[in-house]
Amino acid sequence: MKAEIIAVGTELLLGQILNTNAQYLAQACADLGVGVYYQTVVGDNTERLTNALQTAKSRADLIICTGGLGPTQDDLTKDALAASLGRQIVMHQPSMDKIEEMFRTRGVHMVESNRRQALMLENSDPLANDNGLAVGVALTQDGTSYILLPGPPKEMKPMFERYAAAWISSKMNQAQPLFSRMLKFAGIGESSLEHELLDLIERQSDPTIAPYAKEGEVAIRLTTRAATQAEADLKLDPVEREIRGRLGQHIYAAEDVTLEQEIVRILSGRKLLLAAAESCTGGLFSDMITSVPGSSAVYRGGIVCYTNELKHKLLGVPMDVLEGPDAPGAVSSETARQLAEQMREQAGSDYAVSITGVAGPDSSEGKPVGLVYVGVARKQGDTVVERLQLSGNRASIKWRAAKSALYQLWKLLRTE
Amino acid sequence: MKAEIIAVGTELLLGQILNTNAQYLAQACADLGVGVYYQTVVGDNTERLTNALQTAKSRADLIICTGGLGPTQDDLTKDALAASLGRQIVMHQPSMDKIEEMFRTRGVHMVESNRRQALMLENSDPLANDNGLAVGVALTQDGTSYILLPGPPKEMKPMFERYAAAWISSKMNQAQPLFSRMLKFAGIGESSLEHELLDLIERQSDPTIAPYAKEGEVAIRLTTRAATQAEADLKLDPVEREIRGRLGQHIYAAEDVTLEQEIVRILSGRKLLLAAAESCTGGLFSDMITSVPGSSAVYRGGIVCYTNELKHKLLGVPMDVLEGPDAPGAVSSETARQLAEQMREQAGSDYAVSITGVAGPDSSEGKPVGLVYVGVARKQGDTVVERLQLSGNRASIKWRAAKSALYQLWKLLRTE
Repeated sequence: MKAEIIAVGTELLLGQILNTNAQYLAQACADLGVGVYYQTVVGDNTERLTNALQTAKSRADLIICTGGLGPTQDDLTKDALAASLGRQIVMHQPSMDKIEEMFRTRGVHMVESNRRQALMLENSDPLANDNGLAVGVALTQDGTSYILLPGPPKEMKPMFERYAAAWISSKMNQAQPLFSRMLKFAGIGESSLEHELLDLIERQSDPTIAPYAKEGEVAIRLTTRAATQAEADLKLDPVEREIRGRLGQHIYAAEDVTLEQEIVRILSGRKLLLAAAESCTGGLFSDMITSVPGSSAVYRGGIVCYTNELKHKLLGVPMDVLEGPDAPGAVSSETARQLAEQMREQAGSDYAVSITGVAGPDSSEGKPVGLVYVGVARKQGDTVVERLQLSGNRASIKWRAAKSALYQLWKLLRTE
Repeated sequence: MKAEIIAVGTELLLGQILNTNAQYLAQACADLGVGVYYQTVVGDNTERLTNALQTAKSRADLIICTGGLGPTQDDLTKDALAASLGRQIVMHQPSMDKIEEMFRTRGVHMVESNRRQALMLENSDPLANDNGLAVGVALTQDGTSYILLPGPPKEMKPMFERYAAAWISSKMNQAQPLFSRMLKFAGIGESSLEHELLDLIERQSDPTIAPYAKEGEVAIRLTTRAATQAEADLKLDPVEREIRGRLGQHIYAAEDVTLEQEIVRILSGRKLLLAAAESCTGGLFSDMITSVPGSSAVYRGGIVCYTNELKHKLLGVPMDVLEGPDAPGAVSSETARQLAEQMREQAGSDYAVSITGVAGPDSSEGKPVGLVYVGVARKQGDTVVERLQLSGNRASIKWRAAKSALYQLWKLLRTE
């Protein structure tokens, strides 16, 4: 099946927003085993939208449109497709009832144009919108299938996952559903990971092995078709075992969670408390941990000791460790150790992480940009300090230092 | 001039990376006064790339390709365009010299395929690559202009800004260059801003008035064509004055800087020191401030007092303010005030910000998700506390609370 994704919206064409919908749909199609051959963006203009639909028809047998299903006169996708296919527009009564009910409940007067959101093409399948008003549409004509989805991601994604994916699968005449498994990695870059698994990736067929890199994390998705979960597991297990045999020390989860989510999960499960003393990351580590709902049960808090004075005053690092010709300096293993140990004591936590380094753009204490020390102090056991040399600009060094600290903490937690 | 942007790369088609290049080029074209009518994504495949070029030729007179200029066999853009136009591929000697020089300097053996990056189409204009090896190409044939840019953003953007933009302008026969001015807003949402300026936006012609919303910040760009900066200013000034008359208290800069950059600039200029005590934002405020290069000169650091115990122990808020049936509680004006004042004293800073609230997903102390108090303590002057009711999920509430704290601080700084 050859697919084309058409994102409709003048705000995309002007570059006012990023086309995250196309990325989402491209990944979702790959997961379904559908090959995407083209993506197109077109504005809210009937003539050019019609042209894009016709071009897509000439080179795809599945056309997925997102955007242009709303209530305004700029929302043209259903009209353009109906005209292009010579079909009538009809009212989808359950959607209309839902729209009227919504306005009644909220006590708001319904502007007539809202009725447009309940329209669909005759003889098409409606796709329910669980997070909005505009109904989606799926239909096949002359061997080409069309899916019309709304533009807002919070409406589009659930509609695709819950309804459009199944509709597409039914068109693919594939009796067996897909089963996939996500392996999440830490402490290893995308290229090293691909290097270690290159032979597996190159000779893959079933299950498929797809590396993903997103937001600084690396993942591998294993996917296969099978009649049952048990049958899928029989195919997925040996591949996962092979990957774990090579890179098991970097795999922190077999599901799509972030490293900070996994750490909060481990700490919660063992009723352990955490704190952090941050210098070069400037609060980013704490921000990552506290982005996890429920983190308040395990995270005590931290100190952003951005200056030597605060390292000394709030965390008791002696000034002769921080400054002076023969001192180790703020960016040193010794300072990382003391920050972590002091932080743990002050917070009364089981673990405390410290991060001190040079985020750039200028070097500091004659030390190079990217040099970072990460310390982990423990109630049970010695403090561990790792020295890292990270690359990138200020933002990436901060990001990588915080992620590396999460990784050091996770390595200790998994063996204890 | 009608433009089409073609992004080439299988990793885009599979959704492995976001198509940020298309957004950048769309915005850049809008700034040049070039209308983008379509965007296309196609994989590293000669047949489909050729098809995309031909489709674009039928509907655009400027085709901007990005990607596929590298050294590997997957990099096909120049070959595909040459074949499509019936032109020869030739070596661009200055680029070849640069590539050989680079390998010589690094002492690395040059793989033969790197020569491909110095190739261009006969009778075309080279576009220099200041951050990489692959030379860009610009040419016009049969009334259609083509620009070939590399895929990596750090190579593509400078090539566009420094060379391609001028090349395009020269084709537009527009003697007068564009002048634009960016007004950045804080403490106001996109829809309120549009509402306040709707009449100006609707009757705009010259200068054009374009609202931008990115990363939670709102901006207005004014653009006009003129012979000189002075002549442009004559057209831009009255519009800026009108906008300032309506919304001046929200305009923190007349150039494209973030609110945290502007605050660090003001603090540096006045040699003032800052600190922050964060509860619900969990380090995000500190992270934002420390993302600005040079912030270490003005930012002392902060305390992430995520638990009541740390609010008491590290910042001296009495337990009977934080807990108990009649206590104001951790999320209160009183706690915000004490956190800010204590933080300022401990850090020895001129200003200290405090943020305490309910980020969700669960309510806390019987207080609703999104309730946030922001305090600003000052060496000179009383502490100011603002109560906010923010909406969104945990991540957006953290983000909006931190940005609101920046805004409160900026409001005080601008009047002092």
